[in-house]
Amino acid sequence: MRDLLGGKGANLAEMTRVLGAQRVPGGFTITTEACVAYRSAGHRFPPGLDEELDQALAELERSAGKRLGDPADPLLVSVRSGARVSMPGMLDTILNLGLNDDSVNGLAERTGDERFAWDSYRRLVAMFGNVVREIPSPRFEEPLQKAKDERGVELDSELDAGTLAALTATYKRVYEEQTGEQFPADPGLALRQAVAAVFESWDGERAITYRRLNSIPEDWGTAVNVQRMVFGNRAASSGSGVAFSRDERTGAPQPSGDFIANAQGEDVVAGTRTPEDLDSLGARLPEAHAELLRTLSRLEAHYEDMQDVEFTIEEGELYLLQTRNAERPAQAAVRFARDAVAEGLLTREQALRTIDAEALDALLHPVFDPGREYAVLTRGVAASPGAARGAITLSAAEAVRRGAEGEDVILVRPFTEADDVAGFHAARGILTSQGGKASHAALVARGMGRPCVAGASEVKVDEDAQTVRIGDLELRAGEMIAIEGSTGAVTTDEVPLVEPEISDDFREVLAWSDELRRLGVRANADTAEDAARARSFGAEGIGLCRTEHMFFGADRTDLVRGMFVAAERWRRAELRRRSEDANGDRDDDDFATARGEFDAALERLEPLQRADFAAILHEMRGLPVTVRLLDPPLHEFLALEHFETELAALAADSADRPRATSALEIVRDLQEANPMLGTRGIRLGFLYPQVYEMQVRAVIAAAAEATGAGDLPEIEIMLPLVAYETEVIQLRERMVEVAERARRDAGSEVPFRIGTMIELPRACLVADRIAEHADFFSFGTNDLTQTAIGLSRDDVEGSFMPSYLERRILDRSPFETIDVPGVGELVRIGTERGRRTDPGLSCGVCGEHGGDPQSIRFFDSLGIDYVSCSPYRVPIGRVAAAQAAIG
Amino acid sequence: MRDLLGGKGANLAEMTRVLGAQRVPGGFTITTEACVAYRSAGHRFPPGLDEELDQALAELERSAGKRLGDPADPLLVSVRSGARVSMPGMLDTILNLGLNDDSVNGLAERTGDERFAWDSYRRLVAMFGNVVREIPSPRFEEPLQKAKDERGVELDSELDAGTLAALTATYKRVYEEQTGEQFPADPGLALRQAVAAVFESWDGERAITYRRLNSIPEDWGTAVNVQRMVFGNRAASSGSGVAFSRDERTGAPQPSGDFIANAQGEDVVAGTRTPEDLDSLGARLPEAHAELLRTLSRLEAHYEDMQDVEFTIEEGELYLLQTRNAERPAQAAVRFARDAVAEGLLTREQALRTIDAEALDALLHPVFDPGREYAVLTRGVAASPGAARGAITLSAAEAVRRGAEGEDVILVRPFTEADDVAGFHAARGILTSQGGKASHAALVARGMGRPCVAGASEVKVDEDAQTVRIGDLELRAGEMIAIEGSTGAVTTDEVPLVEPEISDDFREVLAWSDELRRLGVRANADTAEDAARARSFGAEGIGLCRTEHMFFGADRTDLVRGMFVAAERWRRAELRRRSEDANGDRDDDDFATARGEFDAALERLEPLQRADFAAILHEMRGLPVTVRLLDPPLHEFLALEHFETELAALAADSADRPRATSALEIVRDLQEANPMLGTRGIRLGFLYPQVYEMQVRAVIAAAAEATGAGDLPEIEIMLPLVAYETEVIQLRERMVEVAERARRDAGSEVPFRIGTMIELPRACLVADRIAEHADFFSFGTNDLTQTAIGLSRDDVEGSFMPSYLERRILDRSPFETIDVPGVGELVRIGTERGRRTDPGLSCGVCGEHGGDPQSIRFFDSLGIDYVSCSPYRVPIGRVAAAQAAIG
Repeated sequence: MRDLLGGKGANLAEMTRVLGAQRVPGGFTITTEACVAYRSAGHRFPPGLDEELDQALAELERSAGKRLGDPADPLLVSVRSGARVSMPGMLDTILNLGLNDDSVNGLAERTGDERFAWDSYRRLVAMFGNVVREIPSPRFEEPLQKAKDERGVELDSELDAGTLAALTATYKRVYEEQTGEQFPADPGLALRQAVAAVFESWDGERAITYRRLNSIPEDWGTAVNVQRMVFGNRAASSGSGVAFSRDERTGAPQPSGDFIANAQGEDVVAGTRTPEDLDSLGARLPEAHAELLRTLSRLEAHYEDMQDVEFTIEEGELYLLQTRNAERPAQAAVRFARDAVAEGLLTREQALRTIDAEALDALLHPVFDPGREYAVLTRGVAASPGAARGAITLSAAEAVRRGAEGEDVILVRPFTEADDVAGFHAARGILTSQGGKASHAALVARGMGRPCVAGASEVKVDEDAQTVRIGDLELRAGEMIAIEGSTGAVTTDEVPLVEPEISDDFREVLAWSDELRRLGVRANADTAEDAARARSFGAEGIGLCRTEHMFFGADRTDLVRGMFVAAERWRRAELRRRSEDANGDRDDDDFATARGEFDAALERLEPLQRADFAAILHEMRGLPVTVRLLDPPLHEFLALEHFETELAALAADSADRPRATSALEIVRDLQEANPMLGTRGIRLGFLYPQVYEMQVRAVIAAAAEATGAGDLPEIEIMLPLVAYETEVIQLRERMVEVAERARRDAGSEVPFRIGTMIELPRACLVADRIAEHADFFSFGTNDLTQTAIGLSRDDVEGSFMPSYLERRILDRSPFETIDVPGVGELVRIGTERGRRTDPGLSCGVCGEHGGDPQSIRFFDSLGIDYVSCSPYRVPIGRVAAAQAAIG
Repeated sequence: MRDLLGGKGANLAEMTRVLGAQRVPGGFTITTEACVAYRSAGHRFPPGLDEELDQALAELERSAGKRLGDPADPLLVSVRSGARVSMPGMLDTILNLGLNDDSVNGLAERTGDERFAWDSYRRLVAMFGNVVREIPSPRFEEPLQKAKDERGVELDSELDAGTLAALTATYKRVYEEQTGEQFPADPGLALRQAVAAVFESWDGERAITYRRLNSIPEDWGTAVNVQRMVFGNRAASSGSGVAFSRDERTGAPQPSGDFIANAQGEDVVAGTRTPEDLDSLGARLPEAHAELLRTLSRLEAHYEDMQDVEFTIEEGELYLLQTRNAERPAQAAVRFARDAVAEGLLTREQALRTIDAEALDALLHPVFDPGREYAVLTRGVAASPGAARGAITLSAAEAVRRGAEGEDVILVRPFTEADDVAGFHAARGILTSQGGKASHAALVARGMGRPCVAGASEVKVDEDAQTVRIGDLELRAGEMIAIEGSTGAVTTDEVPLVEPEISDDFREVLAWSDELRRLGVRANADTAEDAARARSFGAEGIGLCRTEHMFFGADRTDLVRGMFVAAERWRRAELRRRSEDANGDRDDDDFATARGEFDAALERLEPLQRADFAAILHEMRGLPVTVRLLDPPLHEFLALEHFETELAALAADSADRPRATSALEIVRDLQEANPMLGTRGIRLGFLYPQVYEMQVRAVIAAAAEATGAGDLPEIEIMLPLVAYETEVIQLRERMVEVAERARRDAGSEVPFRIGTMIELPRACLVADRIAEHADFFSFGTNDLTQTAIGLSRDDVEGSFMPSYLERRILDRSPFETIDVPGVGELVRIGTERGRRTDPGLSCGVCGEHGGDPQSIRFFDSLGIDYVSCSPYRVPIGRVAAAQAAIG
């Protein structure tokens, strides 16, 4: 019915159907069809509409026992627009329509409240004038202010009936001056004008713009809702309130709410009077209270969710004005779901649908004690949820040092880079002054489950002075600070942290989810610690183990840097040797030296990698672990400023100078204009195959060890940034050889599979060819988003992205929720073409989107096999996957 | 027949069919089917093959009038492999099969040349041993060398018959030692072994690797060609030669060639004897000569192209050993095409097919006088064709200065950047020591038609010392240097340059092309000079006019830099004002200052842009001109080092220091990690809409002016880097408004269209939505290649790309020829989806690929409307488009 009656009309009709006509103030809806007819009739009432309007009004008058404009006991109505979807720019509400100079007296007599009657009339004239005739509101506000000033009062409510009657007269003069017409004394005429104004607002400028931006067809038109007004301020047996069908903070099965006797709904909202609770309502008006409880139950059952209602009691009679699904914190949501199933109110599927999976995040991280107040020093972007407290630390190295001593630290930086990752591990939380939700700090922090407040622009970090300035406050390194990554708050107050735990309610909801979902849920985990957490949160494997993150350990970065310089020296020696071969002046010594250094560097790294893998495989025993071979842009390891020793050697003109110079030259040569599109992923595997070989040997050796221990490892080796099937053919062959040799060396038949990341548009388009040579696909939707949309994740935050969000070119960052028509289309094409070659091809998603409920729904619709997300988001993924499966 | 007979067998069969059996030495082909049967029979001769082989041999013996192994007059044959496609790793040729200890004497008698007979036999044993039995060739080379040493001679040909006979005996001993078997005395057995060896070579390691890399099915198998040997060295009435059906340098209709009497084909190739020309052959052997001329004519007519043949005359009888289409320079190709049509030999379509469109490039640029020799100092990559001479100049600024004084200069740089573009305009040619065909220098040079030699790594530029060192030679700035961009040569010799001109032949070929092609051909041109050249080369409009290139003029870069700093100051002031509005402390002065500076900068630029457009529109009168609004990464204008004034102010601590600091801070903030994926294209249009507005005003004003002058401009305004249809909706609306206002101001109804670049994968995928709001599409395949494959054009040259080409992961750089399965698929999807919305949607291509014949063929197959390429490539585009159209 929504198409015909609009959203609001359909809701009212549904509520009336559920509760019966006596519980919902009567009314009628003029359909969208009438609007369409109005527009095509040249913006006039089409033939018949007048009659139908009269008929519907007569019907409403009959059921209400009052007549519009009746001087003795007038029927008052509200008029509201109601398109199929809520639309800004459409006509506002008009209340109290039905009052004129006569009926205002009837209302005063019937309610015994002359002040109320004139206040209602005054409001009608202003609202009608402003909304229907577009008289600027200051024209009405000025006389009101003047009246208050003259009487020396502050609030509208302090004006007496006489003043309000005079004000009404003034308003009517304003109306006449501004429009050249009298305020319509005939309520029937006023109603027609209001209806026409709603229709006209469909063609207002803001509405047209909104429709264009949101692709809403122009010919939908809007409906108009005319509804009888009820008054909670007519007598002591009247009142208004809001109520929840259950406790809205805990989800406990006791309805809760606020009620104010002898008051209108706006008084409840305004907060000028202190409301009573529902118990007190029960004491005051037991029948209405009992009826309210019954009504809440019926609404819950009908809407299959906890309800939040607005109600009015008019002379003892309960009226429901609105009902909607109740907003509630995550713990209340899981409690409701579990109780509703236990009560037989909802099925598990229905109960799951009532949960906002995204909101569950709040249950998975520590938070500031909600019972404690604290002073917010500044706010940044809520970049990674959870709360943390610790000593201010201004460098990753310092964080690692102090963290190793058992100290709680917060890493505070202007922004972070790949090099700071060791500091993330060591810190309790991260605070940056630049960047937003897609910044490096935010992404890494979310991946590791560290709380992070990013882009807190008032925070000024002075590394030289070892201070942090926030506004007028100067903090020294080592002083305590606390952050709340779900709200962006920063404080120096000592707020206690509350640790998360998965409640019995949540556990039950997760158990249903596991039974109902089709999608697998794995975790992105790079350490044994992450793996253990992922498993405890129910991950069914590791979908992405990033080997380069292992390289960022504090003890390894130098080793890794040295290895890459050696690798590049070797590669250059190899190229040189070839041209020497051609010239016949081959220099084997030079080549052997370079190769020897490279091999030595790899030998030092291999046992470290093996130990890392072994620890992860042990945690994930019996489950699949997908290991991605080295991926990131080379320069992440090779920023010039990291080569301090070499830079020093150069400055000091030491004996080591030539060697330092050559290293720095290599580093300089390897800098790239667009590293995201440069030497990374499988391209590294071709430049320095020995690095990939070392990684494969380490994985296989660790797996063989795990097999020996009975851990049944399931190894998947993944090639990153593949664009051409030939890349897979050539490198796969080499890796299979290495893996088989490693198996022979270990004397173990540990199984392994070799697959590819699909993270470039080209890979999606030629997925049929790649699938011939890959055992599995894993869609890397982060990089796919960067390349498909041409957006650098490192850059977008500060530049045009805010203006794109503001202009609604984007609803959300495409790095948070998958861009279905673009990036999603590539995933669809990739899956379809890959499975054209291999119908049983396993397809996973391991980008950030793997933990986003909206994206999970899309992946489920494509028939993806599993998503892989940050360990902390695994429970969210499980629930979202179930919601996707049940539709 | 190629599938059954293999390439070589099919060619021989075809030549025999055309010329008759008496002109081609007889032979037969064992089909690929036999190979397949051999392999499935467990690598044995399948039943029936022996008999068929005997039969075919008997047939050959009958037609030749000789028998294999006949001691008196033996038939000698060659055995060669012949797969469907030429494949490295397959078996080499075996010659002279049929000789043994008896028949060698028969051959000696019949030829009267004992030395020849033994030399042939010796070669057979070595070839057979090496190829069929895999005896390493040094085993045969060593005794040969020893024999020469003992006799104190240098050349094989100096050995006498006796020595060769002894050497044959030695070879046979080697054969026995290495294989444990005697060299087969029975030629029939030797033939069978040779055939089996060809079959086996199909399963050799190199062949398998090659097949895998090139997706050649394993079950194709190879054919084997057995052919009677003829000898040009049997008598004075014999000889060997090569001939072209026309003059191979000029294309003139006189056959040309080389002939050596009483010699074998290898003597012609070896160059040890000086050949005669065909006239001299005519004098010596008039009948054979006449027959050769007739044969060349018949071959030309049959193969529909100029031919290049190998022939042997054996005792007065002409034999053709091979024919193929003649390689020839471009001027000969167009002459042949024109003559062939005039002679009635070929239709225009056939004639066009004989032209290599790519090679026409040589006719469109100056070249070093081909008649002059010169010393090549070093060679770099042939990055942009044409030759140039000028004074060495080491900076763009200096090039501009000296160029303005009318001096010819060559810009010599380690590499170039956006900032050097003014220098490209001023210089005759560009020489760099780094980068390759896809480097900035190469791309810009090709776009402007400037000769460029890139990546000449031996060239060491020392800007401080103002010297260029090449090997031991040190040149000072100002000294003359010359480059040849088609060969990569660098010289200091004074080689005269020969200017290109479009010959009558070429003009005729272009005229046919224009009649036959379906695709339009436009040019990418940014200046009036380029536009004039494009028009003179037949461009049908400008498909891409890059407005930012106008900004790189020497007098403008400072203006533009100042404008962007002002723009960003304004944007920040605007953001600040909004938060001030919210806080109620709005500072209008500050905002007005920023806005004022921005406006002033735009006002200075607008007349310059308008004049640029006016000049271009005048050159292109009556033709469409597509103007792309500002596109490049912001930082291209804003590299820190360019702000010399500000840096100086900072250093000097002058009064201007705060202002300089703020400018430098802005510049620093705008640096990006991956500029290619950052703030560019339409994103700039949203950040600083005033810049786009200024550009649109300038275009419209220029067009109005042109209309007044009767030039009938056809303006297309193009939005770059579009990803979302909402971007187009919003910016289009704003641009239409500005354009209409500009039209009113100019009092002219000049028409304009607004379209989009399609250069991001996302844009291709949502082309249906974008097409609702765009008047035309232009595919920017350069950027599409970067994002689809994840390749930064600025970075690939030096890093993994060479290794990818070497490993045949790539055949060619995807920036030269479109990557059909990936990037091409996106263009296909974009075209199809765009036209789903608007069947008449105009779709062009304006990337570098628009001038590449192979890519043009693909674009034609998609139904693209036009390609747009560098002015110098327009004639190539016209011919390639015609070739695509005629299939």
